[in-house]
Amino acid sequence: MTRSELIQHIAEKKSMLCVGLDTDLDRIPKHLLSEEDPIFSFNKAIVDATADHCVAYKPNTAFYEAYGLSGWQSLERTVAYIKENYPRHFVIADAKRGDIGNTSKRYTKAFLESMNCDAITVAPYMGHDSVEPFSGIEGKWVIVLGLTSNPGADDVQKLKLENGEYVHHMVMDKVQSWLSEDELMFVVGATRPDELRALRNRYPNVFFLVPGVGAQGGSAKDVVENGMIEDDFGLLINASRGVIYASNGDDFAEAAKSSAKKLHDEIRSSM
Amino acid sequence: MTRSELIQHIAEKKSMLCVGLDTDLDRIPKHLLSEEDPIFSFNKAIVDATADHCVAYKPNTAFYEAYGLSGWQSLERTVAYIKENYPRHFVIADAKRGDIGNTSKRYTKAFLESMNCDAITVAPYMGHDSVEPFSGIEGKWVIVLGLTSNPGADDVQKLKLENGEYVHHMVMDKVQSWLSEDELMFVVGATRPDELRALRNRYPNVFFLVPGVGAQGGSAKDVVENGMIEDDFGLLINASRGVIYASNGDDFAEAAKSSAKKLHDEIRSSM
Repeated sequence: MTRSELIQHIAEKKSMLCVGLDTDLDRIPKHLLSEEDPIFSFNKAIVDATADHCVAYKPNTAFYEAYGLSGWQSLERTVAYIKENYPRHFVIADAKRGDIGNTSKRYTKAFLESMNCDAITVAPYMGHDSVEPFSGIEGKWVIVLGLTSNPGADDVQKLKLENGEYVHHMVMDKVQSWLSEDELMFVVGATRPDELRALRNRYPNVFFLVPGVGAQGGSAKDVVENGMIEDDFGLLINASRGVIYASNGDDFAEAAKSSAKKLHDEIRSSM
Repeated sequence: MTRSELIQHIAEKKSMLCVGLDTDLDRIPKHLLSEEDPIFSFNKAIVDATADHCVAYKPNTAFYEAYGLSGWQSLERTVAYIKENYPRHFVIADAKRGDIGNTSKRYTKAFLESMNCDAITVAPYMGHDSVEPFSGIEGKWVIVLGLTSNPGADDVQKLKLENGEYVHHMVMDKVQSWLSEDELMFVVGATRPDELRALRNRYPNVFFLVPGVGAQGGSAKDVVENGMIEDDFGLLINASRGVIYASNGDDFAEAAKSSAKKLHDEIRSSM
């Protein structure tokens, strides 16, 4: 999906919501467990219920790999279902991969080519030859970890360098010099509005994928007010557990829809 | 596998060789492509041919995920085959994962529990709550990226901090404070003997997984001389392409055996 297509979808829907599909057999409604592929059945229902309110979906690969072969199959089916039925929705493989060149190319093949996701999340610790191999495919995106929303962000990302900058600043500066803004996003945690504002000022044209809204405590309104780019929007705001596990009863899809709608309303009214 | 079991195996065999199973359908002998599971057939032959000369195997998950569902199946079968037939060999899922706590736990389940690997490689950019969830399982190991052997290591790992240390030093110091040496290894590239020596001096008791020998240019002799720990050995020296693709003819397994034997001899004579 091109940047202009993504922006167009956001503009029409007035939503920047991304629904995280962190699907866990221990948390989905019990009645789904008798289905042939419970994870896919759950995801399908969640996607159908929330598609009107979001512009992106983000399955986290860990939740699928935990179930081995059948989990991988559920992931492939989920992505295929979204691409077939909601082709305007942006699909992110939240895989946080990163390896030397010829190996990262394999992950590119797995997620951006074979599985046909629009984007993959990438961890930058190994540097340019671990990030660049994901780039250069028309309509495909590389979403690089910048500043994450977890407490451990302090351990590496917020170390201070001899030039006075933080590690995550140097990482993001370098990554921005390797990839164009038509194929690059940064993961930027929503835990502190002032940090989000500072990073938006530093990277005025790059899309941010913002986790940490809802269950992790950030507010969608704060994210929009501090992170949005004029005209291009520049944000995908992710919510996972707060949406998909809004209920674990028979009404789970309806509850997910209500939760997504609430975030959609909050985003729309702040745009 | 416990540390003492691993050390015992190294002592008996006088080998610290790890064979990297980066299996690529474009590079394996053509006659295997008609098999039901060519990747597994290739791996099985390589493992049978090299087991006498190595103490560990390291499939890189990217090469399997690139083939989707069938690749994941080949990976599961490969690990199961090694664990069943060569239970003393240490199996590393070279996955370079890392995510927030509850998500890293899922990767733990995938690779250390369900797939029953002995270890998983982990990228530390997200800090303590992305690394610690992999730890604390009896006999299972976390192999954290320290200083890698690729050119991109300069981009993040070798940034200099305000306290005069490099990023990778602070990362490794912190990681060492979170995990015990009975469950922690570091990935340390073999590109420069002086760097390896300095890191060994700084982390005298932690096992290093050393890639970059062979195809990437480091010598096994240099690695042993600069990285070995007295009595405990403390090294797994990885070679991938140089061993498994020593020939792509009918003699591929024999050629892999010869190549592994050569490295084994080089390691043994340097120990």
